[in-house]
Amino acid sequence: MIPSEIIKQKRNGNEISHAQIKDFINGYLSEDIPDYQMSALLMAIFFNGMTESEISALVDVMLNSGERMDFTHNSNYVADKHSTGGVGDKVSIILGPLLAAAGIAIPMLSGRSLGHTGGTLDKLETIPGFKVDINLDEFRKQVDSIGIAMIGQTKEICPADRRMYALRDVTGTIESVPLISGSIMSKKIAEGICGLVLDIKTGNGAFMKNIDDAHKLGNSLIRIGKSFNINTDVVYTSMDQPLGKTAGLWCEIQESIDGLKGKGPDDTMQVTFELGAKLILQAGLSKTQSEALALQKELISNGKAYEKFLEMVEYQGGNSQDIKNYNKLHLPKFSNSLKAEESGYIQSMDTYKIGIATVELGCGRKKTTDAVDSTAGIEFYKKIGDKINKGDTLLKFFNSDSNKLDPTKILLKDSIQVGKEKVEHKLILS
Amino acid sequence: MIPSEIIKQKRNGNEISHAQIKDFINGYLSEDIPDYQMSALLMAIFFNGMTESEISALVDVMLNSGERMDFTHNSNYVADKHSTGGVGDKVSIILGPLLAAAGIAIPMLSGRSLGHTGGTLDKLETIPGFKVDINLDEFRKQVDSIGIAMIGQTKEICPADRRMYALRDVTGTIESVPLISGSIMSKKIAEGICGLVLDIKTGNGAFMKNIDDAHKLGNSLIRIGKSFNINTDVVYTSMDQPLGKTAGLWCEIQESIDGLKGKGPDDTMQVTFELGAKLILQAGLSKTQSEALALQKELISNGKAYEKFLEMVEYQGGNSQDIKNYNKLHLPKFSNSLKAEESGYIQSMDTYKIGIATVELGCGRKKTTDAVDSTAGIEFYKKIGDKINKGDTLLKFFNSDSNKLDPTKILLKDSIQVGKEKVEHKLILS
Repeated sequence: MIPSEIIKQKRNGNEISHAQIKDFINGYLSEDIPDYQMSALLMAIFFNGMTESEISALVDVMLNSGERMDFTHNSNYVADKHSTGGVGDKVSIILGPLLAAAGIAIPMLSGRSLGHTGGTLDKLETIPGFKVDINLDEFRKQVDSIGIAMIGQTKEICPADRRMYALRDVTGTIESVPLISGSIMSKKIAEGICGLVLDIKTGNGAFMKNIDDAHKLGNSLIRIGKSFNINTDVVYTSMDQPLGKTAGLWCEIQESIDGLKGKGPDDTMQVTFELGAKLILQAGLSKTQSEALALQKELISNGKAYEKFLEMVEYQGGNSQDIKNYNKLHLPKFSNSLKAEESGYIQSMDTYKIGIATVELGCGRKKTTDAVDSTAGIEFYKKIGDKINKGDTLLKFFNSDSNKLDPTKILLKDSIQVGKEKVEHKLILS
Repeated sequence: MIPSEIIKQKRNGNEISHAQIKDFINGYLSEDIPDYQMSALLMAIFFNGMTESEISALVDVMLNSGERMDFTHNSNYVADKHSTGGVGDKVSIILGPLLAAAGIAIPMLSGRSLGHTGGTLDKLETIPGFKVDINLDEFRKQVDSIGIAMIGQTKEICPADRRMYALRDVTGTIESVPLISGSIMSKKIAEGICGLVLDIKTGNGAFMKNIDDAHKLGNSLIRIGKSFNINTDVVYTSMDQPLGKTAGLWCEIQESIDGLKGKGPDDTMQVTFELGAKLILQAGLSKTQSEALALQKELISNGKAYEKFLEMVEYQGGNSQDIKNYNKLHLPKFSNSLKAEESGYIQSMDTYKIGIATVELGCGRKKTTDAVDSTAGIEFYKKIGDKINKGDTLLKFFNSDSNKLDPTKILLKDSIQVGKEKVEHKLILS
C-alpha cells in the first residue's frame, strides 16, 4: 500500500476499498502512516464524502481497532441513546435511569464538554465521589447488576476513532457527515447494544444548522445501524435555543433530579420521553407510542426512575444523601443577570454564543487541561415566544470566579433577540 | 492566529488574507504549525483553489522565506527558462548556452528527476567533474563572468517551498494549479531575473494532460509574473511523445551537444528555438520572431553556442575534452530493443510509461537515496506518424545493469500503438 496513492484515489472521487481503509487506519495506529497523511485523507473525505460501503468499512475498522463489548448473556434489551450535542442537553442523565427502571439495560459511554456544547461526563462528575473512569469489566458487571452504568470513553474502545477525532479537531475536518457518523456509530456499536436512539440536534446551537443537513446525518446513521444489525431510531430536536431551564454543570444535575422526580421543565421532559419511547417500542415493552409515554410517566411518578438514579450514583461511588440535599451543594459564589432592554416577545436565541458563554463561565474547557467549575451555569427565565417587559430578567448566570462574569456578560449581551411579534418554537422536528 | 480556523476558512471557500498566509507558512517553517495542519490546508487548497491575491501572497511569502538574488548590477538582460517536466526534455541544456551566447544572462536553478520525468541536474552531473552544488555567491559570480550558470536548488532559496513541496509529494496535493504556480514562480523570481519563458508540457507524459488545464496553469503563471514585474512568456508544447531522439542521462547530453553543434533532432531544436525566441524578443536583441530564429541558428552555426557550453562545463569543474570525445564516454554495457509486431503507422506513444521505463532502467530514482546510472537511456528510432514495417526497431534501451532490462522491456512493450492510418503530431500547441 502506498498511502499517497490512497489519498489521491479519494481526492479524485474514486471509492477506496475496505482493505485500503483497513490498511490506512491500522497503519496510522501503528504509526507507519504519519498524521500529515491522515489529515490529507480526512480533508479529501470532507470534500468528496464517502460511499455507503466506505462508511461501513470505516466503522468496521474503527470498531475492531479496540475492544467490542458483548451483552448477549444479558436477558434484557440492551440499548443506548446518543445526542449529537447541544446546550443544556441533560437528557441522558434523566433518560438512562428511566429506561433502566423500565427494564432496558443501558451501557452508556458518554463524552466531555466539546467546543460550545456541554458534556454528560463533566456534569456527572460534579456529584461528589461519582466515578466515570471505570474499567470495562466493572462496567459490564454494573450493567448486568443494576441495569445501567454511565462512564467515559475508555482507551480500549475504538482507539482509532480517538486518535482520528483528536486530529480532526485541529485540522478543520470535524464537520463531515461520514466522519461524524463513523465516529458516533463505531463507539456505540462497540458497546454491544441491540438498540439505539439518536437525538440529532438541529439549529444554531448544533453541529447541524438546518434540517436538511440533519436528515443527511440521520439517514447515514440509520444506514450504518442497519448494516451492523442495530435497531436504530432517530429523533430530530431543535437546538435553536438551549434545552430546559439550565445550561451548566451542577445546575443541570439539579434539573435532571427535578425531571426524575416529576418536576422537570416541559421541553426537557418532552425530548426525554420522545427518545425513551423509541427504545421502549424497540424493546417491545409497549405496543404504541402513547403506551410508551404513559409507561415513562408512571416510572417517574412511582419514584422508580429516581430510585434507579440513586442506585447508579451509589454504585459509581456517589452518595444518595448528596442527591437528596441537591439544593445545598455547589452553591455559586457569584452571579449576575441579563435584563430585557425592551418589551416584546423573544424571537430567537443565539444558542452557540450561549454555549460559548457557559465555557467562559467555567463549565467547559478552552484548553484540555483547564479545570471546570461545578457551580457554574446559566438559568433561563424566558425562552423563544415568551412575552417580556423591559427590565425583566431574561437569564441569570453564576459561578465561583468573579473574573469570568464580565466577559460572560459581554458574550450574553446580544444573545437574545426581542421583537414585536409572538413566534412559535417547534421542539420536535421531522 | 488559530491554524485550524484558517484551514476551515479555506475549506469553506473563503479567501485567506496575505497576513494569514504569512502567519501560516512562517509558523510552519518555525515548526509552530505541524505538518498535519499544513497538509490539511494544502488539500483544502487543492479542492477550493486560490484567488489571484491568495496566489500572489503565497508567492511573496515563499519568496521571502529565503534569499532573493539580485542582478541589477548586471548590464545584460537577465532571464531564465522553465519547463513543467517531460520525457526526453533536454532543452535547457541547449538553450541556456545558446541564449548566453546571444548576450542574455542566465542564472538557472534546475531540478532533479521527479516521478517519470527527467531532471536537468541528473543529466548535467553525468559530465565528469561537473558540479551543480555551487553556493549562491559563486553562482552569482559565474553568471556575471560568463553569462550562465546551471546549478541545483540551494537551501537558501525558498525554504518554505522546499518543505511544502516535499509534504505535497506524499499527501496527494501536487496537482493543484495555484500550488504548482506558486512553487515554480517563487523559485524563479528568487533568481533575480527580469524575464522568463515557460514551457508548459501538455499531453500523456506531462502533469497537464490536456490543453485546457495547460492554459489554466499558463494563465496563472503569467498573472504571477506580471504582479512581480517579470516579463513572462508561455509556450505550450506536446508531451504526447518523448522529445527528441533520446530519453535518459548521458544520451541526452549527447543529443544536447549534437543540438549545439547543429546536428540536433528537428523536434528538440524546434522547441528550443521557439522558447529562445521569446527571451530574445523580450531582451530586444531581435525585432521579429524570424530574426530571433535566425539569430539562434547563426549562434549554432558559428559555434558560439557550443563554445559557451564548453566554457560553462569548464567553469563548473568539467573538462571540455570529455565533451569533445562525447561518444567514447559512459558506454552502456547492456542493451535491448523493441521491434514492431505489425506494419502501419505509429498512432500514439504512452509517454508516462516510457518515462517510468527510464526510471526502471536507472535514469531516475524510486527512493531519494537510489543511485542513477549515467549510461542508461532509450533511443527512439520512430515517432508518431512514422511508417513502420513489421520487425523494424522502434526503440533501443540500454544501461549497465542487466537485471533491469527485462522489467523495462515489460513496461515498454505496449507503450507504442501502431495502426493503419497516418496521423499528424503537433509539437507546438496554442
